[in-house]
Amino acid sequence: MIHVGRSGNVEPRIYHDGDKVRHVEKRVLVGPAQHAPNFSMRKFTVGAGGCSPYHTHPWEHEVYVLTGQGEVRSASGSQAVVPGDFALVPPNDEHQFVNIGDGVFEFLCMVPLDGEDG
Amino acid sequence: MIHVGRSGNVEPRIYHDGDKVRHVEKRVLVGPAQHAPNFSMRKFTVGAGGCSPYHTHPWEHEVYVLTGQGEVRSASGSQAVVPGDFALVPPNDEHQFVNIGDGVFEFLCMVPLDGEDG
Repeated sequence: MIHVGRSGNVEPRIYHDGDKVRHVEKRVLVGPAQHAPNFSMRKFTVGAGGCSPYHTHPWEHEVYVLTGQGEVRSASGSQAVVPGDFALVPPNDEHQFVNIGDGVFEFLCMVPLDGEDG
Repeated sequence: MIHVGRSGNVEPRIYHDGDKVRHVEKRVLVGPAQHAPNFSMRKFTVGAGGCSPYHTHPWEHEVYVLTGQGEVRSASGSQAVVPGDFALVPPNDEHQFVNIGDGVFEFLCMVPLDGEDG
């Protein structure tokens, strides 16, 4: 049976830990709870001044930018992103998503189920 | 190395075959050519009056609606979707995406690599 939902109705998990991660809301739209077979679709909302942690892990990210102005930081530098931009972060690459605008920065981030903690 | 791109710069493949599939552009944003390890991210743009085929296959879809007004049709009925809505189409479920608005209907559709023909 096809599962349809509204992302605004999904309860967020809040991530905020000093300088490491700031003003991040994560919504798991499709994941283990919806019986996703292989990968998970999450929506991140990063408030002004916010960022995800600069970190690495053994699974990839596939990212699509929905709203706002962001920057993808990595060991090889920074790249600005706007809505309609996408990114593949390969497994084990260091990365961070930073809101560099005045409003919210929103993006989808897909990961294999191994990488889903929600 | 992180791969960043702009979806408007990705060349579309056009699908149009009489009544079966109409006015569909598919852009593979992240897939085999970008060395995606597990799954593929595609952006579909369905013009006014357009639709994807009503079909089924042994892999799932994870869908996020970006623009316009659409309908997800399945064996159990139809559900209207607007930007911010998402869907999980389980493996082997019949489904079709239909543009029911006046403008374009755009959505992301993720599939495991087995389901990627682009």
